[in-house]
Amino acid sequence: MDTEKYYLQRKHLINEDRALRVDAARLDSLKLTATEAKAEAVVRAIRIAEAASIWDGDGSILNYDPLDSTPNVFPGMAFLTGERIECHTVSHSPLYQARETVTKTELFRILKKMPKGGLLHAHLDAMVNIDVLIRLALAQPAMHVRVPTRLTASNIKATLPQFKALPPASSSALSSLTSPTYGGGEWVPLHLARETFDESLGGPGGFDSWVKRTLTINPSEAYGTHNTPTKIWAKFTSTFLISHHLVYYIPIWEQYIREFILSSVEDGISYVEARINFLAKYMTGRDGLENVPHREWLLSIDRVINEVKAELAKQGRQDEFVGLKIIYTTIRFISPEELEWYTEDALALKQEFPHLIAGFDLVGHEDTLKPLIDYIEPLTKLMRRREELGVDLPFIFHAGETLGDGNAPDMNLYDAILLGTKRIGHGYSLVKHPKLMEICREKGIAVEVCPISYVRLTSSMPAHPLPILVNHGIHVSLCSDDPAVFGNMGLTFDFYQVLMASEVTGLLTLGEFARDSIKYSTLEDDEKAHALGLWEKRWLDFLEWVGHTGGN
Amino acid sequence: MDTEKYYLQRKHLINEDRALRVDAARLDSLKLTATEAKAEAVVRAIRIAEAASIWDGDGSILNYDPLDSTPNVFPGMAFLTGERIECHTVSHSPLYQARETVTKTELFRILKKMPKGGLLHAHLDAMVNIDVLIRLALAQPAMHVRVPTRLTASNIKATLPQFKALPPASSSALSSLTSPTYGGGEWVPLHLARETFDESLGGPGGFDSWVKRTLTINPSEAYGTHNTPTKIWAKFTSTFLISHHLVYYIPIWEQYIREFILSSVEDGISYVEARINFLAKYMTGRDGLENVPHREWLLSIDRVINEVKAELAKQGRQDEFVGLKIIYTTIRFISPEELEWYTEDALALKQEFPHLIAGFDLVGHEDTLKPLIDYIEPLTKLMRRREELGVDLPFIFHAGETLGDGNAPDMNLYDAILLGTKRIGHGYSLVKHPKLMEICREKGIAVEVCPISYVRLTSSMPAHPLPILVNHGIHVSLCSDDPAVFGNMGLTFDFYQVLMASEVTGLLTLGEFARDSIKYSTLEDDEKAHALGLWEKRWLDFLEWVGHTGGN
Repeated sequence: MDTEKYYLQRKHLINEDRALRVDAARLDSLKLTATEAKAEAVVRAIRIAEAASIWDGDGSILNYDPLDSTPNVFPGMAFLTGERIECHTVSHSPLYQARETVTKTELFRILKKMPKGGLLHAHLDAMVNIDVLIRLALAQPAMHVRVPTRLTASNIKATLPQFKALPPASSSALSSLTSPTYGGGEWVPLHLARETFDESLGGPGGFDSWVKRTLTINPSEAYGTHNTPTKIWAKFTSTFLISHHLVYYIPIWEQYIREFILSSVEDGISYVEARINFLAKYMTGRDGLENVPHREWLLSIDRVINEVKAELAKQGRQDEFVGLKIIYTTIRFISPEELEWYTEDALALKQEFPHLIAGFDLVGHEDTLKPLIDYIEPLTKLMRRREELGVDLPFIFHAGETLGDGNAPDMNLYDAILLGTKRIGHGYSLVKHPKLMEICREKGIAVEVCPISYVRLTSSMPAHPLPILVNHGIHVSLCSDDPAVFGNMGLTFDFYQVLMASEVTGLLTLGEFARDSIKYSTLEDDEKAHALGLWEKRWLDFLEWVGHTGGN
Repeated sequence: MDTEKYYLQRKHLINEDRALRVDAARLDSLKLTATEAKAEAVVRAIRIAEAASIWDGDGSILNYDPLDSTPNVFPGMAFLTGERIECHTVSHSPLYQARETVTKTELFRILKKMPKGGLLHAHLDAMVNIDVLIRLALAQPAMHVRVPTRLTASNIKATLPQFKALPPASSSALSSLTSPTYGGGEWVPLHLARETFDESLGGPGGFDSWVKRTLTINPSEAYGTHNTPTKIWAKFTSTFLISHHLVYYIPIWEQYIREFILSSVEDGISYVEARINFLAKYMTGRDGLENVPHREWLLSIDRVINEVKAELAKQGRQDEFVGLKIIYTTIRFISPEELEWYTEDALALKQEFPHLIAGFDLVGHEDTLKPLIDYIEPLTKLMRRREELGVDLPFIFHAGETLGDGNAPDMNLYDAILLGTKRIGHGYSLVKHPKLMEICREKGIAVEVCPISYVRLTSSMPAHPLPILVNHGIHVSLCSDDPAVFGNMGLTFDFYQVLMASEVTGLLTLGEFARDSIKYSTLEDDEKAHALGLWEKRWLDFLEWVGHTGGN
C-alpha cells in the first residue's frame, strides 16, 4: 500500500466513525458558516496554546525524578475548591486544585459568556452558593442553630450543625455554641451564634468556615482513594440534611429561588428544569411552624419567576430567561405504598400548575437505595392515572448512576426506558448497554450528563463516559447537578471540563449540547420554538464576538 | 400496563441487550451443561457471601460521621502492595491496600486454580517478581551497582541505583554505597553493596527495600490525585531503565525466562506471547561485554523453553504448557529511518525462528511518544517486504491506551486497524469509536485488556471500559502487562478484579476470556486446536472441582 492511498483510506475511516457522532450533521465542515468556522478555530487555537502555557507541567518521562512535586494540575482533573492541600504520606503529590487556575484561563472567560440553553438536571436544594445561603440565613431573626455539645477545638471537625427557624415566642439560649455555659442541644439565634463564636475557633470567620465545611464536599473527601462512591454519598447526603432547614423556610425559600434564577441567567442559562424534593409534606412558614404545603411552594416559585421576568424586562434583558419548570421528586427510600401519596400529589399539582410541573422522578443514591423495579406497582399505576386524568406528567428518571455492570442501579436503566422516561438523569452506565443506546437514539431519549458531579464516580473528567455517548450518537445536555456542594456554580465549569477532555469536541459541539438542552426539554412546542429562536440569536452574537475578538 | 406484562417486557429487553455480549452464545442458560451451571452458581454464591462478609465496610448514608475512617476497601479498588499507608492531610482516608485481603478470599483461591489459557500481553522486562530478580542478580559476582553520591538517610528516597555486569578484570570499589569513603559513581559488587549497607538505613534489608522501591510502583505513586498518567509513566519507565541491566545479562536472562515460564504455568497459564524490547542491539554476555546479538537472545529462549517442557514432561505435566512466542517490539521514540533497521531485523529473525516470532509492535507511552502515523512509511514498507519474502509477521499494535478522545494515542486505533493489526494492545479508548468496534467484531480483532495495569489510567477497576467492550461483543483476552512493577504476578489477580467489577460476569465468562486468549493467539491452526483441546479438558476438570467442592 502506498502512503498516499493510505492517507485517503484513513480520512475515510475517521469520517465514517465520526459520522455517528451526535453533532455530525451540523459539524460537517463543508457546511459550516464562516462565523462558525472562525469561532471554532479561535477556541481550538486558544486550547492548544493554554495546554502548553498553563497545563503542561509534566516532565519528560525519561527524566524521572522521584522527588518531583511539580503541581501537574491538568484541566480535566481534580476540580473543587481552590485551596492547595498537602498530603504528607502520599508524598510528593500535593493536591493542587484546578478551579482557581481554570477561572483565570481565556477559555473559561469565553465560555462564561456562552449562551448555555437549558439547565435540565439541577437539584434545587444545592443551587445557591453556600456563602450566599449563609448570608440569607443570617438575615432571618427566626433562624437558629444548635449542636449536641459545646463546640471545642477537639470536637468541631466531627460536629455538624442543626438549623431551624423557630416561632417568635420560642425561648432560645442567648448563649454561644462555644461558651462553657452552653449545655448542648439548646437553640441559639444564628446571627448570635456567629457573633459569639469563640476567637480560638476563628471567631465569626471560623463559624462561617465550620458551617461551610459541613455543606460542601472538600477535596480530601472527594479524592481519597478509599472514599468509595457510598462514602462520598454519605457526606453528600449529610449536606442536604443540614441545608434542608435553611432552604425550606419560606422567607429564605423565595430569596433562594430568586438568587438561583438570577445567578443562572448571569451564567448564560436561559431556562431551568429544577428537581425539587417534595419528601417533606410541609416547609416552615413565616410563623416558624412547619405548615406550608406543596402548592404554596409552587405559588411562591411562580411569583418569584414572574418578578424576575419583570425585572429583566425592565432592563431590556427579557430574552435572557424564558422560564423555570419543576421536576417533582421524592426519595428512593420510601415504601411503594408511600409513593402513591406522592404520585397523586404530583398529579394534583400538575393539574393546578400545568405550566410549572415538568415531570416526575425518584432521587437518592442508586447504589444503596431502592431500585425502580421495587416501585413498579405505583409507577405503572401513575401511568394509568395520568391517562385517566389526561395529564401530561412524564417520567424523567435518574438511572444508571453507578460504576457497576448489572447491579441494581445499572438495571434501573432498563426500567427507566421501559417506563418511557423522557430523558435519563446521569445514565453513567448506559454505555454498557448497546440495545438501550440504540433505543435512546431511536426514541430521542437524551442523557442529562453532570460532568463535575461525577467526582463521586470517577476521579477526573477524562475518565468520564461522555465522549462515548457523544461518539455513539446519543443526545446529551450538560448539567451542574448540585453545584453548591461541589462549587461548580452555573454551567461554565462543566462546559469547560468537557471542552478540555476531548480533542474532537470544540466550541460548536458545546453549542450542540446547549441546543439539545432546549430541544430535549419539556417545554411545549411553541415555548420551545421561542426559546430556541432566542438562543440561536444569542449564539450567533456569541460566535461573532469570539471570532472578532479572539475572546478578548 | 399490568405488572405481569411489564416483567415479561423487561425480561425480553434485558435478553435483547445481553444477546450482544461476547459470551452470549455460550452462556445462553438453556444450553449450559449441569457442570457449567453448578460451577457458575457456586462462584456467584461465594461472591455474594464475600461481598457482605469481606468487602462491605460502608456505613449507612444516613449516618454520616465526619470522622469515620473505616477501611472501606472494596474489591475492584486500589490494588497494589499489601502495606497500609496513612495519609495525614487527606485525612480519615487511610489507603488500605486491597491485595492482601484479596489473596485470602475463597474466590481468589478458586481462580488461582483456573486454567487461564494464553497470556497475550506481557512485557518480558517486568514478568518476574522483583524479589526473585534481586536474588538472581545477587548470585552473579559480575553484577555491580552504583549511585551518583554516597547514600544517606536524606538522599536515599531520591536516589536511583544503576546496575551493570562488568568484565571480570574491571576494577571495582570494595567500598559500600553508604560508607563515608564512597566518592560516588564507583561500581560496587552487588552482593557487597547489600552486605555493607549501613545499619542506619536498615542494613541488607534496607538495601532490598530501597532497590525494590525503585523497581515497583507504590500506592502513593499510583493513586495520588495529581499523579497524571504522564507522571505515573515517568516512574514506570524509570523502573525499566533500572531493571534493564539486570534482565538483559545472559546468565540472568536464561534464569529469568525460566522463572517467568514456570511461575506462569503455576498460575494456570499454558501459553505466552511475550513482548520483548529489542531496542538495544546487544545484551551483556558472560564476559561482561555488551556483545550478545538478538538471534542469540532467541536461541537462549528456545533452549529454556525446551528445557522447561522436558522437565514438565518428566513430571507428567506436559499438558500444562504448550509454548511461548515472542512479539518483536521496539520503542516509539526512534526515528522512522531507525525503525527500518528493526523491521528488517524482525523479518530476519522471523525467517530464522518462524516458530518463535509471533508479531511486531511498537511500545512506550502513547500519550507522549510518536504516534503510529509518524511511522507510516517504514510500516507500509514492512507490509510490502513481508509479502515479497512470504513471511507471516503480523502487527499486534498497542493503540488507544489513553484517556483522551481524538488525541494522538486515540488516533492510533485508526492506524492500527488500517494496518491490519491482529489484536489491539490495551485499546482503552476503543469504546469511543463505534465504527472501529464494528470492524473489530467483523474482523475478529480481539483486545488485550490489562485490568490492573490500568491504575495508570483509572483509579479502580469498576471505572474500566472492559464491561463496555464485552457487552458490545468485542472479544478480549485478559493480560497482566507488567506484573513485576504492579505486583499482580500471574493472571489470577487480573481475573479476580474483573470478576468483582461486574455482576453480569461470572465464572463462565472468565472461561470465555481464557478460551478467546487461545483462539485469538498467533498459534498455527494445528497448534491452536491442540492448545484449545488441552485447555477444554482442564477447564472441565476445574468446573467439576468447583462444583463438587464449592471451591473447598
